[in-house]
Amino acid sequence: MRDVFIIGVGQTPVGEHWDLGLRELGASAIDAALKDAGVESVDALYVGNMLSGSVNGQENLATLLADAAGLLPAEAFKIEAACASGGAAVRAAALAVAAGAHDVAVAVGIEKMTDGLASTVSAGLATASDQDYEASHGFSFVALSALMMRRYMHEHGRSREEFAPFAVNAHQNAVGNENAMFREPISTEDFGRSPIVASPIGVLDAAPVCDGAAAVVVCSRERLGADHEAVRIAASAAATDTIALGPRGDILTLESARHSAQRCFAATGFKPEQMDLFEAHDAFTIITALSLEACGFAPRGEALRMAENGCIASGGCIPLSTAGGLKARGHPVGASGTYQIVEASLQLRGRAGANQLAKAGRALTQSVGGHGSIAVSHILEA
Amino acid sequence: MRDVFIIGVGQTPVGEHWDLGLRELGASAIDAALKDAGVESVDALYVGNMLSGSVNGQENLATLLADAAGLLPAEAFKIEAACASGGAAVRAAALAVAAGAHDVAVAVGIEKMTDGLASTVSAGLATASDQDYEASHGFSFVALSALMMRRYMHEHGRSREEFAPFAVNAHQNAVGNENAMFREPISTEDFGRSPIVASPIGVLDAAPVCDGAAAVVVCSRERLGADHEAVRIAASAAATDTIALGPRGDILTLESARHSAQRCFAATGFKPEQMDLFEAHDAFTIITALSLEACGFAPRGEALRMAENGCIASGGCIPLSTAGGLKARGHPVGASGTYQIVEASLQLRGRAGANQLAKAGRALTQSVGGHGSIAVSHILEA
Repeated sequence: MRDVFIIGVGQTPVGEHWDLGLRELGASAIDAALKDAGVESVDALYVGNMLSGSVNGQENLATLLADAAGLLPAEAFKIEAACASGGAAVRAAALAVAAGAHDVAVAVGIEKMTDGLASTVSAGLATASDQDYEASHGFSFVALSALMMRRYMHEHGRSREEFAPFAVNAHQNAVGNENAMFREPISTEDFGRSPIVASPIGVLDAAPVCDGAAAVVVCSRERLGADHEAVRIAASAAATDTIALGPRGDILTLESARHSAQRCFAATGFKPEQMDLFEAHDAFTIITALSLEACGFAPRGEALRMAENGCIASGGCIPLSTAGGLKARGHPVGASGTYQIVEASLQLRGRAGANQLAKAGRALTQSVGGHGSIAVSHILEA
Repeated sequence: MRDVFIIGVGQTPVGEHWDLGLRELGASAIDAALKDAGVESVDALYVGNMLSGSVNGQENLATLLADAAGLLPAEAFKIEAACASGGAAVRAAALAVAAGAHDVAVAVGIEKMTDGLASTVSAGLATASDQDYEASHGFSFVALSALMMRRYMHEHGRSREEFAPFAVNAHQNAVGNENAMFREPISTEDFGRSPIVASPIGVLDAAPVCDGAAAVVVCSRERLGADHEAVRIAASAAATDTIALGPRGDILTLESARHSAQRCFAATGFKPEQMDLFEAHDAFTIITALSLEACGFAPRGEALRMAENGCIASGGCIPLSTAGGLKARGHPVGASGTYQIVEASLQLRGRAGANQLAKAGRALTQSVGGHGSIAVSHILEA
């Protein structure tokens, strides 16, 4: 496989973009990434998105964005992998360059959720679960996550309040990220008081519905320029698990997250403790905990203790989602995986502004879809 | 790039599968392709599909099918490129193997359209056009195609009846295909009498709404076995054009089809006249005509004359859609591009049964989406 490098990143602020459609949001992120990379055109565009068909009435989205961003007649496909779509799009771009089919490609993750009624968006998100055996029986996405959290609390003897450090840390990190949706710090008390959405999940356990787009330009070694602040994609892997929770032997092990992270560690020879940051899929605090355990950062049942000890803070042993994560930067579902890679790239380039870590040489990013039924992991290296 | 070979194909009959869901249809085609290839597992699954989110209420479809087909924890993504999704999924699988990321991968194209109300399916298909500037103003997919056909008739001085040979040929070819939806031959008179859907397009110009799944197993040269009846993917390319018809300089040139075919011809050194068959995207007779012209099989405005002369029949100069095409085999939209590659592979292996061509050494397949806004072409070689 040819080596693949990230040479440009771009993003829109995450929030409620009532004045922008899919084409404006997408083109804005793509334009920013191309400008950052110093390239005017690319050979291909891969779009990570989940809900454009059901919420926005727009499929053929990759062509729409290729058109809007002035990239015609470049190859353009949409990649859908539920909430992991943004990570999958970057992987598709990396594979196309690794194959030698293209020299420069751009991946954009995009979601515009505020266009839809709340019921439409909730129904759309539930299509990441099993329609026949879960969604059609009334399970929302948050309800399924609540089952996992309840089981975790039961099995490990934890209270819902003990999940607070994940949300507090995410909001703290978002303060310094001008593209984040929620830049207000929250306290442990705020977390405890937050209204319940689906018991035991409260508002402050959960990432918000929002709009956003983030883009990454990748290229081959041959196309690397002297001016590029390049980040190498040291490893990339995806893995799956059962789409429904019911058939899993153990709903507290995210097998897809474990497999995809292990493949990245095996491909590079790195171990979890050699990562300087972890962009985790913190859609719900329970998913953050399970991701830390699945990737080998914490033993089973120990993620909450790790968070309590400050290990996930920016000065800690494994800084988590340093730009605010899905929880506080916001979670435009099909875009979040790309935001993670943009944010990790900025850290590795020393361009993370107020959130810059003292040491940022290697990052693990992990985009998880459908309650761990799909996960896409990347190890990036400065 | 590593060479990539097709070593197994599978398909379900195309039709109205009221008794099968997405998981049963998809797993059936995947199982058949794996059995044909003599492999029990694959490294990755790429699913071509357009409407599962809006019509079936099921995103995360690739995970669902990986689960249903017993492929966990393999990588699994859905690829959406409107009606070209099935071709795009095969290209994604080929790129992953070419890159060296995987040695054996399977692509499945799948669509289940009979689940939806007719209005839901029509609205879903219209999402392949520009929602803001076309679909939301009432343009259906067939209405946009009708504009193209009307312009063709005007510019080249043709009547709607003169498009008959494409439909007659497709139905004739479907007679020998046991997986085709419409196996009844039709006459030129039948075509002329067929009710108008959106003038000048009649029922017999148009491919039907239906269900189906087709799958292709690809592998690297290292994994080729002595028993494999392998077909080489000699070239693969995708290209885009404006999503809306309005901004095009000339709506009678399918630029995406032209670019993607030219790239395949340039990559292999072959010329159109060296192809033994052409699996064309005959969703409407006008698209067949424009595809023949875009790919260099006919000069501009000459495709109808070519069809009249019998050139597109199985004994002709460029046999067209020898298993019935989208028109008569049926057009489960996101699956059709994969069916084309399955059918061309069977011809190249000499396994096309009643439809077998005397000479079938090379084939061009072309999957077109959204009125030519996206096209995916492959050249296959025995």
